[in-house]
Amino acid sequence: MDREAARALLEDVRSGQVTVGVALERLKALPFEDLGFARPDTHRALRKGFPEVVYAPGKTPVQIVQIVKSLRAGAQGVVVTRTDEELSAALQAAYPSEATDFPEARVVLVGAPAKPHGGQVMVVSAGTSDLPVAEEAAVTAEVTGAGVERLYDVGVAGIHRLTEELENLAAADALVVVAGMEGALPSVVAGLVDVPVIAVPTSVGYGASFDGLAALLGMLNSCAPGVVVVNIDNGFGAGYFASLVTAQMKPQPA
Amino acid sequence: MDREAARALLEDVRSGQVTVGVALERLKALPFEDLGFARPDTHRALRKGFPEVVYAPGKTPVQIVQIVKSLRAGAQGVVVTRTDEELSAALQAAYPSEATDFPEARVVLVGAPAKPHGGQVMVVSAGTSDLPVAEEAAVTAEVTGAGVERLYDVGVAGIHRLTEELENLAAADALVVVAGMEGALPSVVAGLVDVPVIAVPTSVGYGASFDGLAALLGMLNSCAPGVVVVNIDNGFGAGYFASLVTAQMKPQPA
Amino acid sequence: MDREAARALLEDVRSGQVTVGVALERLKALPFEDLGFARPDTHRALRKGFPEVVYAPGKTPVQIVQIVKSLRAGAQGVVVTRTDEELSAALQAAYPSEATDFPEARVVLVGAPAKPHGGQVMVVSAGTSDLPVAEEAAVTAEVTGAGVERLYDVGVAGIHRLTEELENLAAADALVVVAGMEGALPSVVAGLVDVPVIAVPTSVGYGASFDGLAALLGMLNSCAPGVVVVNIDNGFGAGYFASLVTAQMKPQPA
Amino acid sequence: MDREAARALLEDVRSGQVTVGVALERLKALPFEDLGFARPDTHRALRKGFPEVVYAPGKTPVQIVQIVKSLRAGAQGVVVTRTDEELSAALQAAYPSEATDFPEARVVLVGAPAKPHGGQVMVVSAGTSDLPVAEEAAVTAEVTGAGVERLYDVGVAGIHRLTEELENLAAADALVVVAGMEGALPSVVAGLVDVPVIAVPTSVGYGASFDGLAALLGMLNSCAPGVVVVNIDNGFGAGYFASLVTAQMKPQPA
Amino acid sequence: MDREAARALLEDVRSGQVTVGVALERLKALPFEDLGFARPDTHRALRKGFPEVVYAPGKTPVQIVQIVKSLRAGAQGVVVTRTDEELSAALQAAYPSEATDFPEARVVLVGAPAKPHGGQVMVVSAGTSDLPVAEEAAVTAEVTGAGVERLYDVGVAGIHRLTEELENLAAADALVVVAGMEGALPSVVAGLVDVPVIAVPTSVGYGASFDGLAALLGMLNSCAPGVVVVNIDNGFGAGYFASLVTAQMKPQPA
Amino acid sequence: MDREAARALLEDVRSGQVTVGVALERLKALPFEDLGFARPDTHRALRKGFPEVVYAPGKTPVQIVQIVKSLRAGAQGVVVTRTDEELSAALQAAYPSEATDFPEARVVLVGAPAKPHGGQVMVVSAGTSDLPVAEEAAVTAEVTGAGVERLYDVGVAGIHRLTEELENLAAADALVVVAGMEGALPSVVAGLVDVPVIAVPTSVGYGASFDGLAALLGMLNSCAPGVVVVNIDNGFGAGYFASLVTAQMKPQPA
Amino acid sequence: MDREAARALLEDVRSGQVTVGVALERLKALPFEDLGFARPDTHRALRKGFPEVVYAPGKTPVQIVQIVKSLRAGAQGVVVTRTDEELSAALQAAYPSEATDFPEARVVLVGAPAKPHGGQVMVVSAGTSDLPVAEEAAVTAEVTGAGVERLYDVGVAGIHRLTEELENLAAADALVVVAGMEGALPSVVAGLVDVPVIAVPTSVGYGASFDGLAALLGMLNSCAPGVVVVNIDNGFGAGYFASLVTAQMKPQPA
Amino acid sequence: MDREAARALLEDVRSGQVTVGVALERLKALPFEDLGFARPDTHRALRKGFPEVVYAPGKTPVQIVQIVKSLRAGAQGVVVTRTDEELSAALQAAYPSEATDFPEARVVLVGAPAKPHGGQVMVVSAGTSDLPVAEEAAVTAEVTGAGVERLYDVGVAGIHRLTEELENLAAADALVVVAGMEGALPSVVAGLVDVPVIAVPTSVGYGASFDGLAALLGMLNSCAPGVVVVNIDNGFGAGYFASLVTAQMKPQPA
Repeated sequence: MDREAARALLEDVRSGQVTVGVALERLKALPFEDLGFARPDTHRALRKGFPEVVYAPGKTPVQIVQIVKSLRAGAQGVVVTRTDEELSAALQAAYPSEATDFPEARVVLVGAPAKPHGGQVMVVSAGTSDLPVAEEAAVTAEVTGAGVERLYDVGVAGIHRLTEELENLAAADALVVVAGMEGALPSVVAGLVDVPVIAVPTSVGYGASFDGLAALLGMLNSCAPGVVVVNIDNGFGAGYFASLVTAQMKPQPA
Repeated sequence: MDREAARALLEDVRSGQVTVGVALERLKALPFEDLGFARPDTHRALRKGFPEVVYAPGKTPVQIVQIVKSLRAGAQGVVVTRTDEELSAALQAAYPSEATDFPEARVVLVGAPAKPHGGQVMVVSAGTSDLPVAEEAAVTAEVTGAGVERLYDVGVAGIHRLTEELENLAAADALVVVAGMEGALPSVVAGLVDVPVIAVPTSVGYGASFDGLAALLGMLNSCAPGVVVVNIDNGFGAGYFASLVTAQMKPQPA
Repeated sequence: MDREAARALLEDVRSGQVTVGVALERLKALPFEDLGFARPDTHRALRKGFPEVVYAPGKTPVQIVQIVKSLRAGAQGVVVTRTDEELSAALQAAYPSEATDFPEARVVLVGAPAKPHGGQVMVVSAGTSDLPVAEEAAVTAEVTGAGVERLYDVGVAGIHRLTEELENLAAADALVVVAGMEGALPSVVAGLVDVPVIAVPTSVGYGASFDGLAALLGMLNSCAPGVVVVNIDNGFGAGYFASLVTAQMKPQPA
Repeated sequence: MDREAARALLEDVRSGQVTVGVALERLKALPFEDLGFARPDTHRALRKGFPEVVYAPGKTPVQIVQIVKSLRAGAQGVVVTRTDEELSAALQAAYPSEATDFPEARVVLVGAPAKPHGGQVMVVSAGTSDLPVAEEAAVTAEVTGAGVERLYDVGVAGIHRLTEELENLAAADALVVVAGMEGALPSVVAGLVDVPVIAVPTSVGYGASFDGLAALLGMLNSCAPGVVVVNIDNGFGAGYFASLVTAQMKPQPA
Repeated sequence: MDREAARALLEDVRSGQVTVGVALERLKALPFEDLGFARPDTHRALRKGFPEVVYAPGKTPVQIVQIVKSLRAGAQGVVVTRTDEELSAALQAAYPSEATDFPEARVVLVGAPAKPHGGQVMVVSAGTSDLPVAEEAAVTAEVTGAGVERLYDVGVAGIHRLTEELENLAAADALVVVAGMEGALPSVVAGLVDVPVIAVPTSVGYGASFDGLAALLGMLNSCAPGVVVVNIDNGFGAGYFASLVTAQMKPQPA
Repeated sequence: MDREAARALLEDVRSGQVTVGVALERLKALPFEDLGFARPDTHRALRKGFPEVVYAPGKTPVQIVQIVKSLRAGAQGVVVTRTDEELSAALQAAYPSEATDFPEARVVLVGAPAKPHGGQVMVVSAGTSDLPVAEEAAVTAEVTGAGVERLYDVGVAGIHRLTEELENLAAADALVVVAGMEGALPSVVAGLVDVPVIAVPTSVGYGASFDGLAALLGMLNSCAPGVVVVNIDNGFGAGYFASLVTAQMKPQPA
Repeated sequence: MDREAARALLEDVRSGQVTVGVALERLKALPFEDLGFARPDTHRALRKGFPEVVYAPGKTPVQIVQIVKSLRAGAQGVVVTRTDEELSAALQAAYPSEATDFPEARVVLVGAPAKPHGGQVMVVSAGTSDLPVAEEAAVTAEVTGAGVERLYDVGVAGIHRLTEELENLAAADALVVVAGMEGALPSVVAGLVDVPVIAVPTSVGYGASFDGLAALLGMLNSCAPGVVVVNIDNGFGAGYFASLVTAQMKPQPA
Repeated sequence: MDREAARALLEDVRSGQVTVGVALERLKALPFEDLGFARPDTHRALRKGFPEVVYAPGKTPVQIVQIVKSLRAGAQGVVVTRTDEELSAALQAAYPSEATDFPEARVVLVGAPAKPHGGQVMVVSAGTSDLPVAEEAAVTAEVTGAGVERLYDVGVAGIHRLTEELENLAAADALVVVAGMEGALPSVVAGLVDVPVIAVPTSVGYGASFDGLAALLGMLNSCAPGVVVVNIDNGFGAGYFASLVTAQMKPQPA
């Protein structure tokens, strides 16, 4: 029942064409969906212009192309994550002029990215093997409108590399910090600068890393305040959250 | 070496009282600490005025009072978390006019809270048993300068209670969502409104909740973008992060 | 907005006291809750007359009495689970004539149970130590209207005890089977009779039972079809589900 | 020893052709199997006409065809689950006119399905990747006689899709709710309608989903009463249980 | 239905006092239990004279005394395990002349132990803290008829203590080897002598012993053949099994 | 230092050719190995004639053939477990007349099996998929001298199949019971007959079987006394232990 | 058989009082223990003068005093770890002049510490709550002869505190680094200085620290080479190992 | 700011070309990196001459060759670990005269090993399948300057093989002990000789070894003092640590 239907019903009540009892029944009989007009719009529309997102694993390229098509109707852009070569080819074939492939990030964007919202995100990663997850975060933040800088390969074992970059770290509105193995990097970074840290554990490691569990637990137990965590290898989630919070931030004074 | 010491050394160089070689050696011999002045200030001083924090468990009341004393030197306020009655009494005895007890939150603030920074945080919780963790988050956000609203007892099992509050949820700059048992509330909330969600799993539950593990895993696997997670029962961490990110946010248009 | 409020609004529209536009705005401005009347009644009202439920742990007796009071408004009865002596006394003090204590089940019922719905549930348990959980299931099924039989202490190690009861088992509409340690009893029962089995793992055991994990995993992996599982020690959940499904079942031919 | 054999023996005793001593020995010497007539028939024969079931993994196509053959003797139909293309081909070659392939469900039915028993099951799933498990549940319920409706792709992140379908959900006799990742959907559904929910966690997800563990734990800890759980990815078990309980239910009043 | 009852029924059939039809019904109507005579006696009656066993935790002293009473009817002795002082006192009060307390083993025997069966068991333990579990094994083996020797405090860290006892170890018919922490002792013992080893992990340890999990896993992964394992702290189970297998063994040649 | 060397040294002492001091030093200087004669022979030589064992995984066929060669020197037979086709071919090529392949058991025997020792082992398994592990146990028991009967496909879900075989079960000296999924079969068997049970969990299953963990935990928590457990899929260990204990058992009276 | 006994036997052989045959039998009959003289002394006697060690938990004060007495025979000192007040009092009562209590470390030394061996160990800890474990390590290293410095409260969250101490860290022969929560400190320290790091995870933390598991996994996955790990809370083991390796180290050039 | 830059600045201050205020600002504005000269050199340069290390998994051969190139600038040698044939070929193609392949250890050294530092390491392993990890440890110790002996295939099940080698074990400065399955070998070795033991759990095993978890837990819980642990399969870490500590040890007296 959209507004017009509701208005018509009320007018029929007013005009006496529909009794109060019948109107009450009609309202009661309506499924929730049609009462959706009562759902308040979020007044700032935080994610306005953000692309829709499709997580690829477990779906066939054919299914994904169909899903992308149905989402294109209502969105400026659609992001597909965890793509592989075959899927990327299928999307580029379906959208020859609109699909942008980010192979290192395993992301394909169909359509246009969001307009820059002014927030600045820095993506920090510990090792070369963490790069795909870091890139997934970086590309996600970019296509949702954030400005992104990358600071890669600054592991805890060589902490001086990190300290060289203090000013750059401090200049960001939010930091996405990606690390596998012991996952100590977010704690160290959060101890150095006063910037919110979104920590991403990766499955990089072996043995007692238990596919990222060690890094995940380490990050959840960070003794530095100002650290939150997403799922193992969830570069997308971190980049998205970072873009979402920085989109609302005040520009920094020069 | 504080600024004055550095300035004095440089002036001695300038005046010729100290040779360049000697000055160089003095600089080299200094431990890192004394070179701290070279650490770039984060230009927005995000956490400026935030109280210092002391996590109480594992420490005796005597130790904690000492730690608070040493921290009072450089901070407007000191927050002690996970307090109990004995510790609260000890702090109130040591700081009769300055200690504020928040017993439901198990928090004591010694000194003044941060000035309001304008950010608005809503703390949402699923059940009555989650209240101490929710209050820890709420009080933490308050004493670090956020405006806080509370929306308690809105579990997933009665989702209509949540839908009644959509406008209030959507009006917040950030949401802290606290839940034990299956931990589904943050996903549901993030699916309803476009506001960043900081999810706090609690150890409320029994059996296969495994002291909060079920809720933690549920939140980490949230299929709704815009959700990040902190440690089990870490109300402090969530309230702190929420306050930190909302401190920088633009006021919402009326 | 309850039905009367909605009816009043519609009548005001009809009488012209309220314009259609204003009525539309009032509807839009209402929180979802007040639109609850549009929520379709499930036409069989499965749980009609079922008591409301309060899970006690993590709440103080004072909190629980308050919660019970607020729930009494809309319910014939309120069940409090996982009670202890102190809480039972508090509820009996608050409701001297209405509180019924089931100490073995750790359940207190305030108010009246549901009317018998005709479904027959048998609660089977493996050992003496499983009795509190089994009783929680049995009492829950009873106060929600099921007829309940109990068959206790029929562990897998003495399977002939079970085979003696085949006719009784087969006569039930649903079986709640409670077991700790290795949790094999539900599989064995489901292999003997053609009745749906709701399996309840208990935390009875030691060592590698890991507080009920062994029994839980055993039941989830049951090779007998017709078995479903609830949380460790969740006698309430099993009794409730058993009552819910048997409430709708056809009476058995004599 | 079927009834006839027992009767014959007793008549031989009566006629004096067999002494009491010999008869006693014959009874004693009989394995339990032959005493099966003492096993009470379940008087409603709940699963009467249900197909026999073969779980394929770990068995070769040759073994499975042999097992199916031996089961065909006593059953109207045989269901093989978790099939792949090779196995499906083998079964279709062995039973060219009797094998029905349900490739999405990874199920092959050899022979006839059960007659419709009147129960109505709705299978609800959260995401596209959960489809094979959801289909396994749906096809299992169908071939065992239930009427089945499907409601797919109604994840928690877009809860309004679910609320649109409230009437359909409420019209079912039982719901099978399939979800991976955080596994919150069954709790949400059980909070919306008064219908028994059989929850199926799937291994869909990555990282801290730990191959379905997160969803499993979430469902076991559901705070909504009326939810039971089966093993990860066990669509068959859920569909079977749903069919079993709804087979006995009273038809709903129109 | 014991043999005599069956014989009587058959004779009534023979004499014509009972018709075949009625006899058939009586047989059919009998629960399985009464048909127990068809259950073949194990011809060696391995456990003949073994006491019945009651596991105390989770049961009240009153319950246990009742259970012991009901078991005394059919058994020469009843063993209660995991007793504490209160329970021991209750049993000694109930059976002043028949209860034997083994406080180190946390075992009370009511009645007589089994007659010696000739098997020889040696119980080996690693450390002083493992003593209660080792004694539970030793006393269990003794009251079920085995001859028992004890070799305590021979941890892996001082392997020469073990090698001093090689002849004694080799002289046993079976070894029960009890160890906590890393649980290496059974592997070492099984590598030294050709005697079957029943390994008992204990919960002795801290940190990454995870309440005996480390020892349990170590023993399950023993690279020495001839090792089997029981539950953590299950001295009873090991002593029982050791007594059971050695009861059948040939006496060793002198 | 074998006996002869020791004797020679002592005679040299006696004859005065070697001083006491020198003899003492020679003894001290000897490595432990040469003092091996002091290691007491186990007087019954339990494992006399048992083949040596090689666990294949992680070793190349070339390595395994070499290991077999070195072991053949001192053993009548060598058993290689967890073989595959390639390894079996390599062993048969290296030992064309001596290698016996048991492909279902994934075992190759090079040389002769042990002489029959008279013990009788029955191997019981729950499902078709457990067959390789059951065969590994059966073949291991056979080549180490036990008489072996097989009782396969008697799962808990159809417990009457098991009860038909009570006499055969009771006639064995030891039972190896193999089961995956919930692992309930050993408990059930041990509750039916008085024979020692060696339980083998298998990795058969999916989801919450966690590769055999569910079955392992179930078996460790068996409430039936007389059950011991080996590692997941360790058919070899169970068959070996069963053969070892039954080798010493008295023949059963006819 | 100590050296003197062996010498006496050989002399008896030499003098003819004992025949070669008898001497050989005596040697053969001796248990391994008496042949212990053949065990080669480690030529540097690394642990010479190290006290013997008794781990207190699970033992009564009476048992411990007895164990200490038996160990005092052969050792200059005996260290008892994980003491509490009651045990400390018992030891001080038993050894009024010889027992030294280190209450913060929960250690009592009976007798004299080892002589200083010249090695220098620095014990670094992250937080106040880690102090008991750090002190256990420090006191252990001291009583086994190491020189010990303490650097406490230098958590990762305030990494500049650590960098101030670089010279002191670098001056140690070995570092024991103690941390709970995320356990990142050892990685950070090992990345700053070229000194071997022995990492000690503590059970300090809550929620997803899982009693030290998070810290343990973090340390095992350290990406900095030069880090080894001991059990959770095992300050003793770390202090002992540190003392053991530094005892052999060359003095550092001034 | 390298030394020269700092010197130049100070000279400018001295000469008056730069004011003290400006100099102070320039120092403050410098990132930490340029202040690196204040980092104290570790005076013994423990790892001087040690090769740089690259962990190969998760990186492409092209990436690794690039990383090696960049590291060659500042290091005598570069070690690449966990190589495979393809990577080894790529490194040998890039460095035809400088790359040394250790295929059993899965290690390639580019450039020269460290000069021998005099420390002696013995690598002990339990089984043939542990060989790659043992070789990784041995080669790592060798290329970092240690003398290495290998003692392979001395499992706990045949402990006499180990006792034969007591003198060789005791002669080492440090032992690396590698074992999978139950991981008991390090405890046994540490109980026999007074040499520091670095334990390496391997993922060798199956079932309840859980990919090395059993061995890891066993080693962490070693009851023998003097044992430390590294990650599962981390031969590199153990070899590196062993080389690092023995590099500083005093030569043993002959």
